Amino acid sequence: MSDLRASIVVIGDEILGGFVHDTNSHWLAGQLQTHGIPLDRVQTVPDTMAAIDEGLRMELGRSRPRLIMTSGGIGSTPDDLTMEAVAATLGRGLVVNEDIDHRITLALEWTAGTGATVTADHERAMRRMARVPEGTYLLQGARGVAPGVALDVDGGLADGGVTIVILPGIPGELKRIYSDGIVPELLAGVGTPQHVVEMTHGYPESSLNPVFDRLVAEFPDVHLGSYPGKQCTIRLKGERGKVEAAGAVVRAYLDELDDDPGANELKTAWAARWTD
Amino acid sequence: MSDLRASIVVIGDEILGGFVHDTNSHWLAGQLQTHGIPLDRVQTVPDTMAAIDEGLRMELGRSRPRLIMTSGGIGSTPDDLTMEAVAATLGRGLVVNEDIDHRITLALEWTAGTGATVTADHERAMRRMARVPEGTYLLQGARGVAPGVALDVDGGLADGGVTIVILPGIPGELKRIYSDGIVPELLAGVGTPQHVVEMTHGYPESSLNPVFDRLVAEFPDVHLGSYPGKQCTIRLKGERGKVEAAGAVVRAYLDELDDDPGANELKTAWAARWTD
Repeated sequence: MSDLRASIVVIGDEILGGFVHDTNSHWLAGQLQTHGIPLDRVQTVPDTMAAIDEGLRMELGRSRPRLIMTSGGIGSTPDDLTMEAVAATLGRGLVVNEDIDHRITLALEWTAGTGATVTADHERAMRRMARVPEGTYLLQGARGVAPGVALDVDGGLADGGVTIVILPGIPGELKRIYSDGIVPELLAGVGTPQHVVEMTHGYPESSLNPVFDRLVAEFPDVHLGSYPGKQCTIRLKGERGKVEAAGAVVRAYLDELDDDPGANELKTAWAARWTD
Repeated sequence: MSDLRASIVVIGDEILGGFVHDTNSHWLAGQLQTHGIPLDRVQTVPDTMAAIDEGLRMELGRSRPRLIMTSGGIGSTPDDLTMEAVAATLGRGLVVNEDIDHRITLALEWTAGTGATVTADHERAMRRMARVPEGTYLLQGARGVAPGVALDVDGGLADGGVTIVILPGIPGELKRIYSDGIVPELLAGVGTPQHVVEMTHGYPESSLNPVFDRLVAEFPDVHLGSYPGKQCTIRLKGERGKVEAAGAVVRAYLDELDDDPGANELKTAWAARWTD
């Protein structure tokens, strides 16, 4: 399963409205990177059935095996539509998950135990959270009433298909489920860790273009990224031996620049000019 | 043009790799919200022609008039492919933009003036940044060599079509171009400012479900969001009068809870239980 790739669908009007800064997709991207699983796309979509469906279909159509993670939209309020949307996209029914229903029963008992009135309306809204697409199973690590769950399409990851993991939007819960549920239950032994070499330099990004052209030609398997700034970052990623060799080429080029009085003048001028 | 809607395509392997946390889409989302322009989707895509093309086509197919903003991938290094990708998707040629080419000439003169050697390779890589899709025009506010540009599809925003704005990934430059270029040049007089009412409360989110059901039934035009936490946030958005009326219903319900000893016990227990 070394060719496993991932997609993320973030669900939330609050993010598209600019009210909440999504941190989940960035955190998940970093975890996948560490695990050596390439992330192909992040989509942030509104809380509507049609928008979630469009995003899911797009990701379901990509290469397999594939891990699709969703974040958000699994609470008890009317704008929480992820479960319904996943079921509709897959053409599956919604069924009551007994584990989740049991958590809800305990939560309602806890609420009643505090002295609050649990109305029929309150219970109905809470029980809504137990309805999941057919075939859904609970992942470890979820302490909340709306826990992390997964479901397999075409056999799931184990059989070269797709596993959809539905995660809560609350960052602390999402992180626990990823670490305690997804990694041991779905990703054990999976992934090809990538070797990463990062270098920074104080020259304008464009000064490095000659060596970048050389890298592209000589090291086609090494993934090159260059990120401008007062201090620019160069990131090389891929198989360790090739990344080390490509990194040595860049370091030699930077040494040349450091020995060149003209290049050093440029570096000083660039630092003085940089305003942001 | 009050039905103008927006999409964002963020381009960058460094974001999907978890190395860089994209802040541009969150910032743009907030600006669009303030302007009353709904944002339909954010896609974060890798630095490949095929991935950018897929994202652009998806957003070009949505309702019009539409503003599509891209962020990133317009520098001088080999991984900067946004201009080529936009041109390919639209079936337009790449042409030299004289304004950008002039900026590059000045940048090369500045580099040479510092005492650095400007090689033919260096100049060739820099000149690459002046190649833009046919019909591209410069926006105000860009101080960099790779500035913000725009191009119109089917007449652009002014004629009910699409305007694509290509923005640099560097946050400070993107913000300047949005404020100094996009707002005055493309969005003047556009947008229907939305009224937003936010309320916070210390009850479990599910305690509010009865009033949420009432809102959905009685105020179908008011957009409701509920965001759980130790302090939950309720956000109502829409036409001012309706939002105020819906907000009054929620406030009355919260007052009822505050007067209910059982509900207050629940609030205290919830605060004590909340761990994240």
